[in-house]
Amino acid sequence: MSRIRLTLAYDGAPFEGWQSQPGDNTVQDVLEAAAAEVAGGEVRVSGSGRTDTGVHALGQVAHFDAPEGSKMDAGAWMRALNTKLPAAVRVLAASGVGADFHSRFSAVGKTYRYEIDTAPVLHPLRVGRAWHHPKPFEVGVLRAACELYLGEHDFAAFAANRRDGKEPDTVRTITRAEVEAAGGTVSVIITGNGFLYKMVRLLVGGAVRVAEGREGLGWLRGKLEDPGAGKCQYCAPGGGLYLVEVEY
Amino acid sequence: MSRIRLTLAYDGAPFEGWQSQPGDNTVQDVLEAAAAEVAGGEVRVSGSGRTDTGVHALGQVAHFDAPEGSKMDAGAWMRALNTKLPAAVRVLAASGVGADFHSRFSAVGKTYRYEIDTAPVLHPLRVGRAWHHPKPFEVGVLRAACELYLGEHDFAAFAANRRDGKEPDTVRTITRAEVEAAGGTVSVIITGNGFLYKMVRLLVGGAVRVAEGREGLGWLRGKLEDPGAGKCQYCAPGGGLYLVEVEY
Repeated sequence: MSRIRLTLAYDGAPFEGWQSQPGDNTVQDVLEAAAAEVAGGEVRVSGSGRTDTGVHALGQVAHFDAPEGSKMDAGAWMRALNTKLPAAVRVLAASGVGADFHSRFSAVGKTYRYEIDTAPVLHPLRVGRAWHHPKPFEVGVLRAACELYLGEHDFAAFAANRRDGKEPDTVRTITRAEVEAAGGTVSVIITGNGFLYKMVRLLVGGAVRVAEGREGLGWLRGKLEDPGAGKCQYCAPGGGLYLVEVEY
Repeated sequence: MSRIRLTLAYDGAPFEGWQSQPGDNTVQDVLEAAAAEVAGGEVRVSGSGRTDTGVHALGQVAHFDAPEGSKMDAGAWMRALNTKLPAAVRVLAASGVGADFHSRFSAVGKTYRYEIDTAPVLHPLRVGRAWHHPKPFEVGVLRAACELYLGEHDFAAFAANRRDGKEPDTVRTITRAEVEAAGGTVSVIITGNGFLYKMVRLLVGGAVRVAEGREGLGWLRGKLEDPGAGKCQYCAPGGGLYLVEVEY
């Protein structure tokens, strides 16, 4: 068996997220269709984790097992997949890995970037690629709010209910939560050892709520200290979110 | 009569260019539809010039005459149009102007930017927003080729035949023709007192042909010195072109 690791970029706009769904147009669906066309038979592609509808990837990681007897090396797979994939998905790198590598279970960290566009009028070339937020908020307060997320916490208040009901362990460690402001765009960069369903968007939504002055820092701290007391209700839209990198 | 000047940005991807066409989805069509909805009657919107299918605008300029008796000021028009327009078109600024202002005939210059993406694999978020050109070319030679365009020339060799057959005067003056290279993108910035049909894309296409080493600088110079001897056949794709600014 020959296992291939892929580094992928995609435009989230035309897809119903990463995860394969019957009848849906997902990134996993088009990857498996492209791989099947190249291999001449069914191929199952596993990703490091799901991304939701509209969420973009700059460095998603996935893996698959080449069919028995395949003579193609990783570079040949990359070139062949890129000829079959829609332009909205691209393999940026491919390498052969051992059977012990798993894109999801071997991952030790992930970095996301969330972009907030503060221009009075959203530029047409930014549609679906940022959260348009023209109402003023304090960048300094946003930074202070994001710093509360650093460290190990039970993030249950920042997890949407999964459709399958599973979410056994809601403790995660955030090692980076930075805010950058440049040219009308405020970006939140978050690195952690793992993320719950919609967690990054809920972290950003909650921090922006505080930066708008509509909630205090104590409200946000309470969601971390007493996660059972009530979920964060403010989920930033999918189009502003970019999966930057998966670490192994 | 009250004439309103608009500064517009648009994503060229979803449109069949600027110019209104029967049954076509053009920028002018959606602007006139939005203005008619706001005004409650037909409004004719004139632009500084056409942009082709896929071409983007960061600062297109247009004007229209508000219906007799309209009490709306320019700011109210801007806000109202932005609520009616698709997100791919936005009014960035609006001002009241005199009846002697005409977005096309009053224009004294235009600046375009053309983006060439040289990455081995085109990033999905750059699809339709740059010419993907992974084959090597010499940026220094591209710069030298673009410098040939500076000054007053008969650019007939760099004009596609218009569907209406009109192109009475093909002499134009180019005052800026610069090449910038940053992060895998090579950009050509061109300013002139006017441009013929598809002229910027033919100027870029011809210059890239020379930078690839497939034609010499003398070939390009010949197209300027003897414009009747044969047209440039190399037209760079529309998605890489951005109308940056119109000067008055």
